[in-house]
Amino acid sequence: MNFKEELKIKAAMVEGALDRCLPSPDTYPPLIHQAMRYSVMGGGKRLRPALVMAGAESVGGNAVDVLPAACAIELIHTYSLVHDDLPAMDNDDYRRGKLTNHKVYGEAMALLAGDALLTLALQLLAECHGSHPENVVRVIREVALGAGTLGLIGGQVVDTFSAGEQIDEKTLKYIHRNKTGAMYRLSVRTGAILAGAEERELVLLTEYAEQLGLAFQIKDDILDCEGDENKLGKPVGSDIRNKKATYPSLFGVEDSRKKARDAVSRAIAALVTFGNEADFMRSLAEFVIERDF
Amino acid sequence: MNFKEELKIKAAMVEGALDRCLPSPDTYPPLIHQAMRYSVMGGGKRLRPALVMAGAESVGGNAVDVLPAACAIELIHTYSLVHDDLPAMDNDDYRRGKLTNHKVYGEAMALLAGDALLTLALQLLAECHGSHPENVVRVIREVALGAGTLGLIGGQVVDTFSAGEQIDEKTLKYIHRNKTGAMYRLSVRTGAILAGAEERELVLLTEYAEQLGLAFQIKDDILDCEGDENKLGKPVGSDIRNKKATYPSLFGVEDSRKKARDAVSRAIAALVTFGNEADFMRSLAEFVIERDF
Repeated sequence: MNFKEELKIKAAMVEGALDRCLPSPDTYPPLIHQAMRYSVMGGGKRLRPALVMAGAESVGGNAVDVLPAACAIELIHTYSLVHDDLPAMDNDDYRRGKLTNHKVYGEAMALLAGDALLTLALQLLAECHGSHPENVVRVIREVALGAGTLGLIGGQVVDTFSAGEQIDEKTLKYIHRNKTGAMYRLSVRTGAILAGAEERELVLLTEYAEQLGLAFQIKDDILDCEGDENKLGKPVGSDIRNKKATYPSLFGVEDSRKKARDAVSRAIAALVTFGNEADFMRSLAEFVIERDF
Repeated sequence: MNFKEELKIKAAMVEGALDRCLPSPDTYPPLIHQAMRYSVMGGGKRLRPALVMAGAESVGGNAVDVLPAACAIELIHTYSLVHDDLPAMDNDDYRRGKLTNHKVYGEAMALLAGDALLTLALQLLAECHGSHPENVVRVIREVALGAGTLGLIGGQVVDTFSAGEQIDEKTLKYIHRNKTGAMYRLSVRTGAILAGAEERELVLLTEYAEQLGLAFQIKDDILDCEGDENKLGKPVGSDIRNKKATYPSLFGVEDSRKKARDAVSRAIAALVTFGNEADFMRSLAEFVIERDF
């Protein structure tokens, strides 16, 4: 099976699992469950949950066993987008080619739907019954740390409050490492820990994930400069309009491309002691800089 | 030791533990940690965390061992208040006698600080190292369920979206059972489960907590009608201004008082098989309807 087929299968597995784990749209109170589903279903590349599954497989685990955790990571990613799009934050009208949550359901509901997605994510992690409870507790602690002010939220804070300001490379790297990198790191580690990874394996997988996250973010910045709006499903040039620092704005497009390629090389190098079971992760690293969406 | 002294000691223990578990105000990025501390520290009656400790003690556990969980419950309570006060929700300027979070730190930061408090709460639950990992996982699942759309957030949704509408007793009870009741139930159960409670004990403690939550909420509604603004630290009459349904608006003050007293009696009756170790909980039930703040 080639990489694109495998990614499609993993995405379809996640899609089905997300549909099952979200309360049905008529569960009382219905509107919030509809709002949650609106932002979660039928969109996104599902790269993070695919990485949770790949993380498990790379250490001999089973992708199906970590599906609830894969959904949890995707829900945390979605909650952060829903809150990020709110008028008090980036005030975006479109996401993944459709209206943002608050444009459809209003600000109050989008706020609560985001809260609910984060809360449901933690519930799902606590429902990984196939894994050893000690590993489940470890994963929950890591996810909460990585999604908190020393990770995802910290990156969000610095990104939001430095918009319009001249920021240096150090700050840009902080934002990327936390806003994007933390969730990539969590995805791979979550799958691997739940599948019983050894510490030695975790160190290598963490290096892989960090380089992958960096490459993904640089590519995202480049796509915002010169991508195709139809393929991306969102307007390009929003970073420039919001005066956000990006790799292209600090280093130019050509140098940014090189930095992304270097990160991919380092990601793949980190997997050198792994066998075929890490092939998906190797291909994924190539994919994140080749993609045009 | 009498009840008020014991409540004061428990509140002081929680105060110290919250101070230790929150990142210091100069941790990078500093502003969000200051915003989190602003809403958490130096306010509130700390009834919920006291109940976590009391829940543990009632089944022979130690209050100190469940302090991280007690803090977690208080952080979830605080996050819900911070988000609830936002302009998109209740748009309140004051809480516990001081400006609300967004009035001091702005909407974006208040939103992120709320997110961060919820996230930190789940991290703290995963750090209850003294308890059996299976009990920790069970507690995390229960807390996430109770704080989600079938609990706290569900109550919040129905409360927010029925403001200004004529609602019936059934809807009012749904709001109270979820918006307030869920956190009381979680508090007692969290402490008890972490301390290794038996199922038989949990059933009784759950009945106690549900009746206590009901009594607390009715008293809150009554105080909003006829309380002292200085003692409450917030303006009275906000329910009437926001046209929210309350016990007094549906049943009148006298009948509401009787319903609160009945709930306290049922709460205390649920503890009949417990010994002295449940005295704090018995006194707390009396306290929630006698209080004037």
